[in-house]
Amino acid sequence: MATAFEHPYVPKELHLPGYVPCFLSQKDILVPYLATSVVGVALIWLFSGRLSKISKTDRLLMCWWAFTGLTHIILEGYFAFSPEFYKKKTPHFLAEVWKEYSKGDSRYAARDAGVVTVEGITAVIEGPASILAVYAIASRKPYSHILQFAICLGQLYGCLVYFITALLEGDDFSASRYYYWAYYIGANGSWVVIPALIAIRSWKKISAAFQIEKKTKTR
Amino acid sequence: MATAFEHPYVPKELHLPGYVPCFLSQKDILVPYLATSVVGVALIWLFSGRLSKISKTDRLLMCWWAFTGLTHIILEGYFAFSPEFYKKKTPHFLAEVWKEYSKGDSRYAARDAGVVTVEGITAVIEGPASILAVYAIASRKPYSHILQFAICLGQLYGCLVYFITALLEGDDFSASRYYYWAYYIGANGSWVVIPALIAIRSWKKISAAFQIEKKTKTR
Repeated sequence: MATAFEHPYVPKELHLPGYVPCFLSQKDILVPYLATSVVGVALIWLFSGRLSKISKTDRLLMCWWAFTGLTHIILEGYFAFSPEFYKKKTPHFLAEVWKEYSKGDSRYAARDAGVVTVEGITAVIEGPASILAVYAIASRKPYSHILQFAICLGQLYGCLVYFITALLEGDDFSASRYYYWAYYIGANGSWVVIPALIAIRSWKKISAAFQIEKKTKTR
Repeated sequence: MATAFEHPYVPKELHLPGYVPCFLSQKDILVPYLATSVVGVALIWLFSGRLSKISKTDRLLMCWWAFTGLTHIILEGYFAFSPEFYKKKTPHFLAEVWKEYSKGDSRYAARDAGVVTVEGITAVIEGPASILAVYAIASRKPYSHILQFAICLGQLYGCLVYFITALLEGDDFSASRYYYWAYYIGANGSWVVIPALIAIRSWKKISAAFQIEKKTKTR
């Protein structure tokens, strides 16, 4: 006979038939994710150093776009297209990530339409676009800044929808204050601050390019 | 004694206590909206003609940004901050607009968090930004293209969230096929097609500016 497990998410009334608890601890999830990311970023940093005349800022940006792109495609892509991740009976790393993260925001387990939509757009559009940004910076494409700006705006719009819908629905989806600050606010914070900084930089670079264009034309 | 009115929206189970039916007909709503828009656009067209060396495309864009900006601020701004519009007991034009539009998408009357969020972002950010775009084009600001591109992406992201959340929730919020196509698809269609066209144009202009910058630098 199947035993029904009680889920750890808030609200308690959330109905999740077939829920199977996490197999991995928080550490077992975070360490591989961070370790893989550090290795990936280090590789991009090393290889980008071999490009001629590339600035340190551009190398850092390549690292960021590779990291965020793979996170969008693999982690968020898995979530967007796996409605039954919380039922996984074997330790599947990506399912474990979202079982754990749902403690910070139960709308993930609950399959909230707004969250699934934002994650879907992020995985399908912004993920591949981020990888393209790595290439665009490396090969100094003229569309490099506008592409980075576009992805940043997508990430910022996604975060706005993510946080505002939660507020409108009562902001009560975290299992505890700890998970609220560590997962819901903490894990998403980088995707507000970093895209905002890059968007401002790209805006300035693009405006500057038009000032040069204006001068060139009026010569 | 208060009489409870039956609402015309789908799903029928939607609970809207205090609902008061439309006072104005579809024509009474559309004609003033379109007439005001035509007058506004005509004024922008005439005045922009007095600017020196401005292209017809830029004049058309100024008309579009004025029209879409005012629609965002006035119409969508009213909706975003008026949760009780469907209870209005007197003919308030803006409340009537949304009572009528809800026949195409009952999530408006139901105050769906995703719809309120998208409309709120559109009204508060994209509305004023569109008005700024009119000024930026008129005064040939170097940020003119990146600003227009940013607003277009916001409008497109908003439409994506709007349509995908509806699909995920069953795509059954229209009172009839007529309202589905006329309001839900028809009225929103312009905000998919026009922003997409302007975004592509801005992307090309910005990439071209960087090609000029590159050439200038390598001279």
